[in-house]
Amino acid sequence: MARIVMKFGGTSVANVERIRNVGAHVKREIDAGHEVAVVVSAMAGATNQLVAWTREAGAIHDAREYDAIVASGEQVTSGLLAIVLQGMGVPARSFQGWQIPLLTDKTHGSARIESIDGTALISRLTDGQVPVIAGFQGLAPDNRIATLGRGGSDTSAVAIAAAVGADRCDIYTDVDGVYTTDPRIVPKAQRLDRIAFEEMLEMASLGAKVLQVRSVEMAMVHKVRVFVRSSFDAPDAPQVGPNGLPPGTLICDEDEIVEHQVVTGIAYSKDEAQITLRRVEDKPGVAAGVFGPLAEAAINVDMIVQNISEDGRTTDITFTLPTSDQARAVEILETRKSEIGFAALNTAAEVCKVSVIGIGMRSHAGVAAQAFEALAKRGVNIRAITTSEIKISVLIDAAYTELAVRTLHSVYGLDKA
Amino acid sequence: MARIVMKFGGTSVANVERIRNVGAHVKREIDAGHEVAVVVSAMAGATNQLVAWTREAGAIHDAREYDAIVASGEQVTSGLLAIVLQGMGVPARSFQGWQIPLLTDKTHGSARIESIDGTALISRLTDGQVPVIAGFQGLAPDNRIATLGRGGSDTSAVAIAAAVGADRCDIYTDVDGVYTTDPRIVPKAQRLDRIAFEEMLEMASLGAKVLQVRSVEMAMVHKVRVFVRSSFDAPDAPQVGPNGLPPGTLICDEDEIVEHQVVTGIAYSKDEAQITLRRVEDKPGVAAGVFGPLAEAAINVDMIVQNISEDGRTTDITFTLPTSDQARAVEILETRKSEIGFAALNTAAEVCKVSVIGIGMRSHAGVAAQAFEALAKRGVNIRAITTSEIKISVLIDAAYTELAVRTLHSVYGLDKA
Repeated sequence: MARIVMKFGGTSVANVERIRNVGAHVKREIDAGHEVAVVVSAMAGATNQLVAWTREAGAIHDAREYDAIVASGEQVTSGLLAIVLQGMGVPARSFQGWQIPLLTDKTHGSARIESIDGTALISRLTDGQVPVIAGFQGLAPDNRIATLGRGGSDTSAVAIAAAVGADRCDIYTDVDGVYTTDPRIVPKAQRLDRIAFEEMLEMASLGAKVLQVRSVEMAMVHKVRVFVRSSFDAPDAPQVGPNGLPPGTLICDEDEIVEHQVVTGIAYSKDEAQITLRRVEDKPGVAAGVFGPLAEAAINVDMIVQNISEDGRTTDITFTLPTSDQARAVEILETRKSEIGFAALNTAAEVCKVSVIGIGMRSHAGVAAQAFEALAKRGVNIRAITTSEIKISVLIDAAYTELAVRTLHSVYGLDKA
Repeated sequence: MARIVMKFGGTSVANVERIRNVGAHVKREIDAGHEVAVVVSAMAGATNQLVAWTREAGAIHDAREYDAIVASGEQVTSGLLAIVLQGMGVPARSFQGWQIPLLTDKTHGSARIESIDGTALISRLTDGQVPVIAGFQGLAPDNRIATLGRGGSDTSAVAIAAAVGADRCDIYTDVDGVYTTDPRIVPKAQRLDRIAFEEMLEMASLGAKVLQVRSVEMAMVHKVRVFVRSSFDAPDAPQVGPNGLPPGTLICDEDEIVEHQVVTGIAYSKDEAQITLRRVEDKPGVAAGVFGPLAEAAINVDMIVQNISEDGRTTDITFTLPTSDQARAVEILETRKSEIGFAALNTAAEVCKVSVIGIGMRSHAGVAAQAFEALAKRGVNIRAITTSEIKISVLIDAAYTELAVRTLHSVYGLDKA
């Protein structure tokens, strides 16, 4: 007997027929003797419609009202799934964020979860009932509904799994797991049976869009094992594959992974732009002078590269950011040109960051050299490099993205046999 | 300065453009110096869609889940109108039933309001803010959302007007007031400037579908003056007509109406069926034996006619009920035939009840005779008659409905000049 939180996204609950399919997945786990709580998103399209109405009502709109409007989507799905489960003979009831309560901070529209009272949910679970929880929403300190921002239902699910001490949080989505890289680029990409939290965090933040970064962070902090699988699987398909798990990817502590591959996956991130500041004075406080104003403008800077200066007086600073923020960032920096003190500002819009990720590289030398050599052989020019303990990222021209991803996937032995 | 509750129905908030029109109505009252709270229904069609999903999810569905699902419609509208008002420079915020709180009993799906804490609303009103309240919903004792049944937003509005001590509750609807009868049948029907609560109660329950019966009852009990007007009026049209009020009908205490017409209006109710029990034993408890089982089956019996028995031993009992319940009622009575003790059961499906209503008839003799004579002259056969202090109802063949309504409207001098 295990305690499981099952989360279903918008496409999995797009209509009542699909919700019935979700019900069958839940019933299977109940019949297997497990305790189950479910977290649901809004029906696919519902949130977009609600957001569109909100925008039509007012270009600048009160985030608290936005939250009241948009949270109604998950409210509907939670009720519908509860009814479907009851019809299958599974005792179930819906919970809205304010009923649990799931308390958030006051950042309406993109609130963070502050605390969850698991008492009511645990009491239902031990009673053999299925709480069906509206994801994406909670109660803010002002006694009003707060939403967690796009994709927040994943975060809800992991947080609830932590609050009720679940053995696992199963994320049912429209892909059947986490792959070594994007299968649309590399048809030989393989589904990973297991991946460590740290690796998944890099995969998620680097563009593998299976799970929200926040939900992976939360899973890592609270040690919640997350299992990603497809909601399109037949609910009555065999649940135990040759490796002891149904088809899908388990995101878990690295201790649970017996032998690590040196490299687990290759991620990439398009829609990046590059800005380089030339001959910045090499003195304390310069980096803060550059990135402080950008942070204030809520511009999310990604890769930052600064090399040791040659002459001891000036250096170049390169960083990447979303293409959509480039113009704003340039404007901010140009107006502060004399204050920051740089000679010139260069930009490049069509760049891509490709990353090689793997916990195993901590204990293996030469991983980076292997990447650089392979890319050089294919004529891919590397614009900038950053590394961390478990990843190597290179910035290249966007036109070479697919070539670089395929090359790296192959050179680290990730291609399917 | 007055304190006003304004209520807008589904067609008045059918899309964002219409909601903007509602906002203009609200702003007009604010600009005139009034304190305003608003109650809104769901966007037209939204509730039907939600109900359809609920039915698709399960033919027999948990009323608590139905409530969670269906109440989301009003939640959306309240948020959208708050945003629209803010955009017009009117400080506003949405309130869900559970946030006020508006407490109901536990009858999920058709709950009754138990109490409303007006504190938060009054504090907003005196601050010059506009609370935008989701109608139709409240919080049940189990800490879950309860809805008030179809048309419950009218009841919400009147109850909230009572709770905040409003001077008036303005119901904006798709008609511009209460008429002496249905204008589709009698083009010469006139809009009433004022109508007493008791009269409106008869008009509402007898088929004039302007306001929910429950909301009129509540208005009468709490002495809430209700003003019915059209939401299609231009918001900037002159608000004071020749009689001191904008176009519409004020439903108020009879004391507020200086001189009463003998007859205020003619109502009718189609889709009625008639059941007559022949030669029922004339002894105590017989009526209870007939109507008890029907009440248990939630069959709403309307007109009941029982005459003095001629022989002192048996009598006939006639009653009407909705056509949709006729078959069920007949079955219930036939299975209890020997227990109740009747000789035969006759039915008629195509009948109509036409009612003459007016507080003035309390002090006027001959009102009933006038009706019977007028109908006889036109060859309309009266099947049964019941009367109360302020109304006379006759049951006739449905085919004569329009003729009877027109005849009575004319005979009591209600035709527009």
